Amino acid sequence: MITYNPKDWFTFIFRFHKADTLRQLSPLIIAICIYSWVITFLELHIFMLSKNSHITNITTMHTLLSFVISMLLVFRTNTAYDRWWEGRKLWGSLVNNSRNLAIKLQSMLPVEEEAHRAFFRKTIPMYASVLAHHLHAESTRLALDEQEHTELNLDSNRHMPNQVASMLMQRVNRLYEEGKIKGDQLIILNNELLSFTDICGACERIKNTPIPFSYSVFLKKFIFFYVMTLPFSLAISLGYLAIPVVAFIFYVLASLELIAEEIEDPFGSDENDLPMTKMASNIKKHVAEIIL
Amino acid sequence: MITYNPKDWFTFIFRFHKADTLRQLSPLIIAICIYSWVITFLELHIFMLSKNSHITNITTMHTLLSFVISMLLVFRTNTAYDRWWEGRKLWGSLVNNSRNLAIKLQSMLPVEEEAHRAFFRKTIPMYASVLAHHLHAESTRLALDEQEHTELNLDSNRHMPNQVASMLMQRVNRLYEEGKIKGDQLIILNNELLSFTDICGACERIKNTPIPFSYSVFLKKFIFFYVMTLPFSLAISLGYLAIPVVAFIFYVLASLELIAEEIEDPFGSDENDLPMTKMASNIKKHVAEIIL
Amino acid sequence: MITYNPKDWFTFIFRFHKADTLRQLSPLIIAICIYSWVITFLELHIFMLSKNSHITNITTMHTLLSFVISMLLVFRTNTAYDRWWEGRKLWGSLVNNSRNLAIKLQSMLPVEEEAHRAFFRKTIPMYASVLAHHLHAESTRLALDEQEHTELNLDSNRHMPNQVASMLMQRVNRLYEEGKIKGDQLIILNNELLSFTDICGACERIKNTPIPFSYSVFLKKFIFFYVMTLPFSLAISLGYLAIPVVAFIFYVLASLELIAEEIEDPFGSDENDLPMTKMASNIKKHVAEIIL
Amino acid sequence: MITYNPKDWFTFIFRFHKADTLRQLSPLIIAICIYSWVITFLELHIFMLSKNSHITNITTMHTLLSFVISMLLVFRTNTAYDRWWEGRKLWGSLVNNSRNLAIKLQSMLPVEEEAHRAFFRKTIPMYASVLAHHLHAESTRLALDEQEHTELNLDSNRHMPNQVASMLMQRVNRLYEEGKIKGDQLIILNNELLSFTDICGACERIKNTPIPFSYSVFLKKFIFFYVMTLPFSLAISLGYLAIPVVAFIFYVLASLELIAEEIEDPFGSDENDLPMTKMASNIKKHVAEIIL
Amino acid sequence: MITYNPKDWFTFIFRFHKADTLRQLSPLIIAICIYSWVITFLELHIFMLSKNSHITNITTMHTLLSFVISMLLVFRTNTAYDRWWEGRKLWGSLVNNSRNLAIKLQSMLPVEEEAHRAFFRKTIPMYASVLAHHLHAESTRLALDEQEHTELNLDSNRHMPNQVASMLMQRVNRLYEEGKIKGDQLIILNNELLSFTDICGACERIKNTPIPFSYSVFLKKFIFFYVMTLPFSLAISLGYLAIPVVAFIFYVLASLELIAEEIEDPFGSDENDLPMTKMASNIKKHVAEIIL
Repeated sequence: MITYNPKDWFTFIFRFHKADTLRQLSPLIIAICIYSWVITFLELHIFMLSKNSHITNITTMHTLLSFVISMLLVFRTNTAYDRWWEGRKLWGSLVNNSRNLAIKLQSMLPVEEEAHRAFFRKTIPMYASVLAHHLHAESTRLALDEQEHTELNLDSNRHMPNQVASMLMQRVNRLYEEGKIKGDQLIILNNELLSFTDICGACERIKNTPIPFSYSVFLKKFIFFYVMTLPFSLAISLGYLAIPVVAFIFYVLASLELIAEEIEDPFGSDENDLPMTKMASNIKKHVAEIIL
Repeated sequence: MITYNPKDWFTFIFRFHKADTLRQLSPLIIAICIYSWVITFLELHIFMLSKNSHITNITTMHTLLSFVISMLLVFRTNTAYDRWWEGRKLWGSLVNNSRNLAIKLQSMLPVEEEAHRAFFRKTIPMYASVLAHHLHAESTRLALDEQEHTELNLDSNRHMPNQVASMLMQRVNRLYEEGKIKGDQLIILNNELLSFTDICGACERIKNTPIPFSYSVFLKKFIFFYVMTLPFSLAISLGYLAIPVVAFIFYVLASLELIAEEIEDPFGSDENDLPMTKMASNIKKHVAEIIL
Repeated sequence: MITYNPKDWFTFIFRFHKADTLRQLSPLIIAICIYSWVITFLELHIFMLSKNSHITNITTMHTLLSFVISMLLVFRTNTAYDRWWEGRKLWGSLVNNSRNLAIKLQSMLPVEEEAHRAFFRKTIPMYASVLAHHLHAESTRLALDEQEHTELNLDSNRHMPNQVASMLMQRVNRLYEEGKIKGDQLIILNNELLSFTDICGACERIKNTPIPFSYSVFLKKFIFFYVMTLPFSLAISLGYLAIPVVAFIFYVLASLELIAEEIEDPFGSDENDLPMTKMASNIKKHVAEIIL
Repeated sequence: MITYNPKDWFTFIFRFHKADTLRQLSPLIIAICIYSWVITFLELHIFMLSKNSHITNITTMHTLLSFVISMLLVFRTNTAYDRWWEGRKLWGSLVNNSRNLAIKLQSMLPVEEEAHRAFFRKTIPMYASVLAHHLHAESTRLALDEQEHTELNLDSNRHMPNQVASMLMQRVNRLYEEGKIKGDQLIILNNELLSFTDICGACERIKNTPIPFSYSVFLKKFIFFYVMTLPFSLAISLGYLAIPVVAFIFYVLASLELIAEEIEDPFGSDENDLPMTKMASNIKKHVAEIIL
Repeated sequence: MITYNPKDWFTFIFRFHKADTLRQLSPLIIAICIYSWVITFLELHIFMLSKNSHITNITTMHTLLSFVISMLLVFRTNTAYDRWWEGRKLWGSLVNNSRNLAIKLQSMLPVEEEAHRAFFRKTIPMYASVLAHHLHAESTRLALDEQEHTELNLDSNRHMPNQVASMLMQRVNRLYEEGKIKGDQLIILNNELLSFTDICGACERIKNTPIPFSYSVFLKKFIFFYVMTLPFSLAISLGYLAIPVVAFIFYVLASLELIAEEIEDPFGSDENDLPMTKMASNIKKHVAEIIL
C-alpha cells in the first residue's frame, strides 16, 4: 500500500506513477484516439455531413444517458471502496483481537508458565500470517465458482486458519480443565477466540464473492457502447477537437471502472491492496512486546 | 454463482453469456425497434411533421425526467444489491458459526465421547442444508402473502430449521445436565446456538418480503411510459437513427431493472443467486476436518 | 402485504391495482390536466404569446431545479424505505427471539413441568399480538405530539407490552429462585428477555416520530410550485401537448411522495404495511411446534 | 415535536406554520426580490443589454454548477437528518433501557424491599430528566470549543448524569455485596447500567460536534454567490419574470440549508427538536407502572 | 475544533477565517484568473475565433462530465466526513468507556483501598493522553507504507497504548486473584478493558490508511484537466466574463477536494481536527469526579 501526502497536488498531477490509471489506460486511450480520428475523417471528408445532419442529434442520447452512466460508475466505485474498507476493518479487528488476547493471557498466565507463554507468543501472530497466505491462494477465490476446478486439488489440503484457531481453543480449554485459568476467565477469553474465525469467514466472503456477474457484464457493455457512439455526433460539432474530447471522456469513465476493479478485491497483490504481510509482522512485533 | 476475472474486458463486451441482460432483453429490444420504426415512419412520411412541430419539444420532458429515472433505477439496483449482499453475509455467518461451534465442541468434548462427536459432526452441517432447502421452497416465499395458499398445504409440515436448532440445543443442554460440560462452557456455547435461528429468520425476511408493491408497480409503469414516448420527439430530430437510439436507452433502463429483480432475491436458482448447496457442502467438509 | 412475481411486467403495466399510485392520483391528474388546458388556452389564444416571449425561458428554472427535486424525492423514498425495512427487521427479530426463547426453554424445562410449559407456550406469542395491537393504536402514534390529546385517555391504560415482558421476566426469575434453572441458564436466557422491550421501543420510535415537520412541509410546497409553474413555459413550446406532459411529470413526482408517505409508517393498515397479525399467528404456530 | 398526518396536502401547501421555512425566509426572499428587480432594471433600461450580450451565457455556469449545489444540499440535509435520527434512536434506547432495568429489578427485588424499590422507582427516570437538562445547557454545546469560555464557569459544577449513573451502580453493587442479588443477576443487570453512560456520551457527541467549520463556511458562501449571480443572466432571458424565478430558486436552496441547520442539533428547543421533557415524563410513568 | 452558531450567515459569508477554503485557495484562484485571461485574450484578439468555431462546442464535454465530477467530489467529501465522524465516535466511546470503568471501579473497590483507587484515577485518563500522542506521531501515519522509514526508528520504541492497556488489565486481574473483586465483577469489567485496545486499533486504521492511491491521483488529474479546458469554450461565449466564471467553478470544485483532504484524517492538527488534548483533559476531570 502507498501512504502519501494528499496535499502535494503537483506530484499527483504531473507524475505518472505505476498505479496511475492514466498509465494503465494509455494504450486504450491511443486506440480510442485513432478510432475517433477515423470516424471524424469519414464524416467530414468522405460523407461530408453538414451540421443539419440527423447524426448531430445523437448528443441527445448521450445527454439523457450521462446521468445514469455517471451514477452507475460512482456507485460502482463506492461499492468497491466499501468492500476495500471492510477488508481493512477486518484486518484492523484482527490486530485488535490479537493484542487483546495477548494482553489478557499476559495477565492471567502465571510468570512461571513459560511453555504456555511461548506457545501463545508464537501461535497468536501465526493466525494472521496463515490467513494472509490463505487469502492469496487462488483456491480461496474460486471456492464458490459453479465450475469444478480439479487443477486446484481443493480436497487434499485442509483449511489452515481453522486448524490454527482450533489449536488456540484447545490450549485455552486445557488450561481451564487443568485449573490454570478459572471459569470467569474462560468466559472473558471467549470473544477473542471466536473472532479469529469470524474475521477469516468475512475475508473469504469478500474474496470469493465478486459483484453479481450480470451487473459487471452490463456495466462494461454500457461503457463500451457509450464511448463508441460518442465520436459520431461530436465529429460534426467539434471537428478534429472531437479526438481529445472523446479520449478524455473515455479516460474518466474507464478510470472509474478500473479503480473499482482494483479495489473491490483488497486481498490481492495490486499496488492498492492491503499490506497483509506487513500487518502480520506488526502483529508479531506487538504480541512479542506484550507477552513477556 | 459465476466467479470471473473482472479485468477480461474483451469477453465481457463481445460474448453473450446466458446471464447477460442483452440476451434476455433481445426479444423486447427487437419489439422496441419495430415500434420506433413505425412511429418514425408515421411522423416523417405520413404526417410529414417538420422540425418546428410542437412534438419535437417533448424532449424537454425526457430531459426533466432523466434525472429522476436514472436515480430511481440506480437506487433500485443498489437496494437490490444490498439485499443480495446481506444474504451473502448471512450465509457467511452461518459458515463462521458452524466452524466456531465445531471448534469449541472439539476442544470441550472428551476424546472418548464418540457418540456425541458423531452427533455434532452430522447435525451442525445439516442445519445449512435444511436451511438451503427451506429457502428454495415456494411456501417460504409466500409465507406473508395476504392471500391464502391452500395448495401449498402450509400447516401440515413443521418448520424444519427450527427442529434442527432445537435438537442441537437439547443435546448441549443434556451434556450440561449430565455434567459433561460446565456452566462456563454452556455460556460460551450459547452465542453460536442462538445464531442459527437468527440467521434463518433474517434469510426468511429477505425471501418473503419483496420491495413494497406500489414502488415496484410505479417503477415499471414509469419505464414503460418513458421509453414509449421517446420516439415521438426523437423521430424528428434523428430520423431513422431514432431506432437504435431508443433501443439503446431501453436496453440501459430495462437492464438495471432486470438486474435488480434478479439479485433482490439471492436465494433462488438464477445464475447470480447464492450457491447455497455448495456452501452447505463446504461447511460439511470443514466441520468434518475439525471435529475428529 | 402483497407478495408478487417481479418478472410479470405485463400485469404491472396494464392493471390498476388498488395500491397503484396511478389509481390513487387519478383525480388529481385530471385536475392538473384541466389546469394545464386553461393555461395553454389562455397563453395561445387569449394572450397570443409568441415563442420569443420571456415566459418560454421559465424552462431554465425547471431545468436548474429538476436535479434538486429529483434527488430530494428519491432520497425521501429511500429514507421511507429504510424505515419500512427497519420495521420489517424488528419484526423479524421478534420472530427469531420468540423462537430462540422457546427453543431454550424447551431444552431447559423438565418434561414434567407442564404448567410452566403451558405458560410460556401461551405468553411468548402473546407478546407479538399485544405489540401488533399496541402499534395500531392512535395513542401510540401521538405519544410525542406537542399538543395534549385528552380524547385518547392516555393515562388510564397501562403500557401492555411492558406488562407482558414483565410477566415473562418474573416467571423466569421465579424458576431461577426455585432452583429449576441454574445461574448459567439464567444468563443465557437474559438476551431474549431483553430484546422484547428493545424491539417494542424501536417500533414505537418509528411509529411516533415522522420525518421532521418542516422538511415535509417544504417538500410538498416545492412539488406544488414546481408543477404549477410548468405549464406556463411548456404551453408555448409544446402547445396542447403540454397537457399530457405536465400530467406525466406530476404523476412521477407525486407518486414518489405518495409511496414515501405510505411506507414510512410500516405499522398502519395500508396495502404495503407489514402483516403484523399474520406474523403474530406464525409465531404462535412455531412456538407451539417447539415447546411440546 | 409536531406529529402530523402526512396525507393532508392542502394544509401543508396553503398554511404558514411557525416552523415553515417559507415563513422564516420571507424577509430574505423579499430582499432577493428587490435585488433582482434592481439588476433587471439596470440591465434592461440603463445598460440596455441585448440577447447577444455575453452576460446571457452565465447560465452555462449555473447549469454546470446546478448538480453540485443540489447534491451538496441534499447530502447536507441527509447528514443532518441522520444526526437527528441518531439522537432519536439514542433517546429510544434510553426508554428501552429504563424499562428493561425496571422490569429486571421488579422481578429480582423481594416484595418487602420497599426502600430499594422506591430508590429505583425515583432514580431510573431521574437519569432521563437530568440528561435532558444537561443537553439543553450551553456549556454542553461548547465543551470542545477551542476558545475558553470562562463565563460558563465550567469547572465548578460536576457532570450530573455521571453522578446519577454512579448512584445507580453503587446501589446495585451494594445489593450484590449484601447478597440480595446474586452474581448471575449482577451480570445480567450490567448491560443496562452501562448503557446510560453510553447514551449520554453519544448525545454529547452530537451536541458538541457540529459539521466541520470549513464545510459549513463553504456551503454558505457557495449558495450566496450562486443566487447573487443568477439575476445577471436571467434578467435578459426572462425580463421581470426573473424576479419570482430567482426568489423561488433561493427559497428552495436556502430552505434545504435552513432545515439542515435546524435538525442537525436535535437537542435544542426548535419546533423540530426532540421532545426530551415529554419522553422523560413518559419514562417516569412507565417505570412507575412496572416497579410496584 | 471550532464550535460555531450555524445560523449566523453574515459572518460566514463575509469574514475570511483561517480555516476558510477561499483564503487557502486564493493564490491558486489568482493563478487561474491569469490563465483564463491569457486564453481569452489569445482566442478573442490573436486567433479571432468566431462563435461558429468548433472550440465553442467543448462545452458539450463539460456538460457531459459535470455530473460525474460533481458526484465524485460530493461522494469524496462524504467519505471523508464519514471517516472524520467515525474518529469522533471512537473518541466518544473512549470517553464513555473511561467513565463506565471509573463508575464500576468506584462502586466495587472498598473505600479503604486508596492505593488502587489512586492507580485507576491516574491510569484510566492516561490512556486517552497516550493515545492522543500516539496518533499525532508521524510513525503511526506511516505504519503501513510500503517504503521503509528508517529515519523514524520504528523498532526501538514500544507501542505505548498497548502498555497502558496491559497495565490496567494486570491490575484488575491482580485484584481478582487477591479476591478483592469477584468473578462476576471481573466479567462485567471485561468489556471496558477490551474497548481501549479496540478503539486504539480503529483510530490507527483511520490514521494509517488513506483512500486508495489511484483514486486520489485520478481525482486530482480529473479536476485539473476539467478546469484547464474550461476557458477554451467559455472565452468565446462569455468574453472576459469567462475569468470570474472559471475562477468560481474552480473555487467550488477545489474547495470540495480541499475540505475532503482536511477532514479525512481527523487526528492531525488542522483547524477542523478533533480536539484530542481537550477531550483527554475532560476525561481526566470526569474520572477524578467519579473515583473519590
